[in-house]
Amino acid sequence: MKKILFVAMLAVCASVNAQYSRDKYALPNPPEGKSAENCIPGATYPCVDDQHRATFVLNAPKAQSVAVDICGKVYPMTRDERGQWKGTTAPLVVGPHYYRLVVDGVNVNDPNVYTVYGSGSCFSLIEIPESEEDAAYYSYNKDIPHGQVRECHYWSESRQCMRRCYVYTPAEYETSKAKKKYPYFILQHGMAENETGWHEQGKMANILDNNIAAGKAVPMVVVMDNGDCDYNMGAVPGGLGTTFENVLLNEIMPYIESNFRVYTDREHRAISGLSWGGQQAFNIGTAHTDLFCAIGAFSGAIFGVPSMQNAPFNNPEQFNKDIKVLFLSNGTEEGLGGMALDPAFDKQGINYIRYKSQGTEHEWLTWRRSLNEFVQLIFK
Amino acid sequence: MKKILFVAMLAVCASVNAQYSRDKYALPNPPEGKSAENCIPGATYPCVDDQHRATFVLNAPKAQSVAVDICGKVYPMTRDERGQWKGTTAPLVVGPHYYRLVVDGVNVNDPNVYTVYGSGSCFSLIEIPESEEDAAYYSYNKDIPHGQVRECHYWSESRQCMRRCYVYTPAEYETSKAKKKYPYFILQHGMAENETGWHEQGKMANILDNNIAAGKAVPMVVVMDNGDCDYNMGAVPGGLGTTFENVLLNEIMPYIESNFRVYTDREHRAISGLSWGGQQAFNIGTAHTDLFCAIGAFSGAIFGVPSMQNAPFNNPEQFNKDIKVLFLSNGTEEGLGGMALDPAFDKQGINYIRYKSQGTEHEWLTWRRSLNEFVQLIFK
Repeated sequence: MKKILFVAMLAVCASVNAQYSRDKYALPNPPEGKSAENCIPGATYPCVDDQHRATFVLNAPKAQSVAVDICGKVYPMTRDERGQWKGTTAPLVVGPHYYRLVVDGVNVNDPNVYTVYGSGSCFSLIEIPESEEDAAYYSYNKDIPHGQVRECHYWSESRQCMRRCYVYTPAEYETSKAKKKYPYFILQHGMAENETGWHEQGKMANILDNNIAAGKAVPMVVVMDNGDCDYNMGAVPGGLGTTFENVLLNEIMPYIESNFRVYTDREHRAISGLSWGGQQAFNIGTAHTDLFCAIGAFSGAIFGVPSMQNAPFNNPEQFNKDIKVLFLSNGTEEGLGGMALDPAFDKQGINYIRYKSQGTEHEWLTWRRSLNEFVQLIFK
Repeated sequence: MKKILFVAMLAVCASVNAQYSRDKYALPNPPEGKSAENCIPGATYPCVDDQHRATFVLNAPKAQSVAVDICGKVYPMTRDERGQWKGTTAPLVVGPHYYRLVVDGVNVNDPNVYTVYGSGSCFSLIEIPESEEDAAYYSYNKDIPHGQVRECHYWSESRQCMRRCYVYTPAEYETSKAKKKYPYFILQHGMAENETGWHEQGKMANILDNNIAAGKAVPMVVVMDNGDCDYNMGAVPGGLGTTFENVLLNEIMPYIESNFRVYTDREHRAISGLSWGGQQAFNIGTAHTDLFCAIGAFSGAIFGVPSMQNAPFNNPEQFNKDIKVLFLSNGTEEGLGGMALDPAFDKQGINYIRYKSQGTEHEWLTWRRSLNEFVQLIFK
């Protein structure tokens, strides 16, 4: 458990609210660079220059010291005569990064940006832009149709609480024939994140919209619920995330299948997730090959190798027939991804795809890329 | 302008993410009260006691002073030997309140709660609960069907940016006959808020769900977009919020009418809003009686009285025929609400409804109540 926590806390990257575009009436960029894409209205800092250095400001006349803690380093900020603190980082790696300002030794969020939920709390976030070409697959494209992300609430008998589920429906869903049904897949966040992660940090709607518009992915519904794996969520019986399988099979899936125009057979269901959610997707998917035809574990927190003597792996022919896509991915610079599975699966004759995200760590860029690959493979 | 700013800054209340219910595996309540409803997982503070006193904590071993700034007062917090600061307020009025912690003189958000966007920034929020009876109309009811709140993105030619629109669809929308259409209404936030306000602070989905399930309101679609009225949003030509009418009429409404199953005639369209959004709804609605059949201004920032010599008010008979519902509301403890309109309308013979929210200020409780009244009146 400690190892997981350590890795999760180190995860340097998350993402930015794709929805907060700066419009033509926004203030001009500051001298140090281009304003970050999730600045709140009226804020021009933080900004990023061509060399990927970020500059942050904070108005704090009464503070004794202010710094910015980002990508594992703390950069001091300096005070001007009006009490505004400013600091610039060294060049940062591309991608979305969680960060905090440090005011007199206390970590606080930057009031100049929208916050997102990740790493077990609401966090400030800045996106260090990739090239337009590299970012195209997860960027908003004004020239294509766009799906919707729907926030749904339902009552969970097993958890005795209202739960929140995000459901992506493709652009054509609203206008297609009333009887047309869609395949769907379950897409899980990682430890200490929640059901907003894939939508906000992961830019999943843009990834789906772009792939569907290009004909690379079939129109599909995507379901994002809470994996019950927040490390600070209290005493969950059985351990972190173990309640999720029951909620998924007996509450979420019935809710989706009775409230959306989706197919309800295994050939039209997939399950995937990132990190802890990748482990959940792998475990639930392989335990229920009668329910799913595709499984994705993006940087899956899968430790050890399941016994090849036990179902479903003891019958590779059947497994390969049932699971059309078993997708395992990792960033080349990270330690997770269930890599120990590969030699065992090779030996057993289990088909799988190993995708490696070049140069990325345990971070949202790895997961955006993994999702981009996965949606092009499933339901075909 | 200064007067508006002042009032907006003073607005003591907002609301809480209705979606973050504590489930049965949540940690037990702390000794000082019941954990607030929008605590993040694992957080038990802030909490509220029976006398509506709230207790806040912050881990800040290196800080010299910590306080909590809520409802216009600053309450000092005290440090224990581990460096955890704790402070309890005097009894607070019921409803949702924005607040900030003050660390060595710097206002910061509380890491223990989800933040919402309001007052021109991401803010911490705590709900001081009303009685169950008083809160019933905006509370989640597990025994009724629930609608969805959909996040939609569209390209704005006039603003040259992607815009975000929230659309509530009633529970039956997804399962009703494919040809069934719904009336819709535009519901605007106030100054320095955004399109998330009615959904998160306003609990609009619960209010609509409860009224529709009880047969008090007809099933309807609700559209919440950005009113372009953030006071810190930069140099918008023509002044605060003036770009909204063009975006609404030429971009938002066409988008909604081509992407949702809604009626497209004036008898099935309404417009309303709160504070600055109430002024927008009043001005746009009365300027376009050919487009809307109902207008609501909740604590509308309407200063002065339009000329009764000019259309549409110079023809009360026609106006009363066109505008089935002209709804003006205010909290009895506030200064906004367009009250100067009443004697002018009385004299001219313009029909309107004046709703007064007893004992509330310029705050979300006034607006939740106003919405609750308004949805029961329209499209009937």
